[in-house]
Amino acid sequence: MDKKKYVIIVAGGKGLRMGGEVPKQFQCLGDLPVLMHTINRFYHTISSLTILLVLPSEQHLYWDTLCKEYSFQVPVTLVAGGETRFHSVQNGVSCITDIEALVAVHDGVRPFVSSAVIEHCFEMANAKRAVVPVVDLVDSIRERIGSGSKTVNRNQYKLVQTPQVFQADLLIKAYQQSYNDSFTDDASVVEAMGEEIYLVQGNRENIKLTTPFDWVVAKAMV
Amino acid sequence: MDKKKYVIIVAGGKGLRMGGEVPKQFQCLGDLPVLMHTINRFYHTISSLTILLVLPSEQHLYWDTLCKEYSFQVPVTLVAGGETRFHSVQNGVSCITDIEALVAVHDGVRPFVSSAVIEHCFEMANAKRAVVPVVDLVDSIRERIGSGSKTVNRNQYKLVQTPQVFQADLLIKAYQQSYNDSFTDDASVVEAMGEEIYLVQGNRENIKLTTPFDWVVAKAMV
Repeated sequence: MDKKKYVIIVAGGKGLRMGGEVPKQFQCLGDLPVLMHTINRFYHTISSLTILLVLPSEQHLYWDTLCKEYSFQVPVTLVAGGETRFHSVQNGVSCITDIEALVAVHDGVRPFVSSAVIEHCFEMANAKRAVVPVVDLVDSIRERIGSGSKTVNRNQYKLVQTPQVFQADLLIKAYQQSYNDSFTDDASVVEAMGEEIYLVQGNRENIKLTTPFDWVVAKAMV
Repeated sequence: MDKKKYVIIVAGGKGLRMGGEVPKQFQCLGDLPVLMHTINRFYHTISSLTILLVLPSEQHLYWDTLCKEYSFQVPVTLVAGGETRFHSVQNGVSCITDIEALVAVHDGVRPFVSSAVIEHCFEMANAKRAVVPVVDLVDSIRERIGSGSKTVNRNQYKLVQTPQVFQADLLIKAYQQSYNDSFTDDASVVEAMGEEIYLVQGNRENIKLTTPFDWVVAKAMV
């Protein structure tokens, strides 16, 4: 009587921050484009998962070409990306009709999520409805206040990763809200409806490949 | 009439978190122990700098041996470490008598600080008295509240690095305070006296080698 499971992999990035011509989700890490590493992590953890890959529609053809080139055969459903990450996820969510399902949302450029974290997030979402993986801050943090700043207790804060996993009915309802600037991730969208977010331990290696420095790290890890 | 400049390099860590037998500050990164990389960064940026190296006293002899082994000839003054990081820095500060000087405090296991950041921190400390380098948060953060948590605006927060640079009179006075748990870095000690902390841009690569993951990253960078 297992619930159906989905993952929405969001890869809307045009890669402008990387400076290269190839959008960053398609850049190679070892032997494969980063997006294929990410998809493999989910597929090899839960093979029955339905994978929705949200990509700008002008990249869909390129994706098909890449799949042939790399003989990549994991079944994914392509979904058109939107104007912002919120709109991209919204497009993914709109493909889900089974309101009893569990739905993960994951950044396409986080290829190092562990199987244990994927499994644990789905498991806990069954009971807790809305689950995000987090890790401790290693550095001190300061809060900016006007032109100044103050030390804050870093133990009170956690760095948020993905996959963020939700009961489908909750996520569907959350993504019917109008977009606003405070939506920095899926948990914040769900939280805006008054829902509590449950935190689980993420894995430190699960970094989001954003800056050139992150790519140096990523290349060392594959 | 340049002010005299010091750096207190704090390497009190017994390396318990790394699991190895050799304390982490002595582990090799490429061709040199990490602490020598860190010292080189400062020495090659400002050769007139007085370098105070704070190490547990039972490691002083080992340091001398390492210097011979690696023909490491940068002049440093060894200072005995204390019970906590606060007490180690306090011991370093107690060696400084020139109250007109500028004093940087830097983590021994941050070997990737850039010359530009070192120079800029000293430069600004001359005018601003208390300066710390910071970088943006890439991930979302959540604040823990009781058993729950809430999204906070990550743009309001900054990750704090070292070197943190201060006018000597200020730092000497700050380290005469009694230790308390809210002292997570030198800025927080100085701030406790009501002093404002000035933020400058750090460099992303300037990570603190804490977990095994950080070492994977570090080895990729050298």
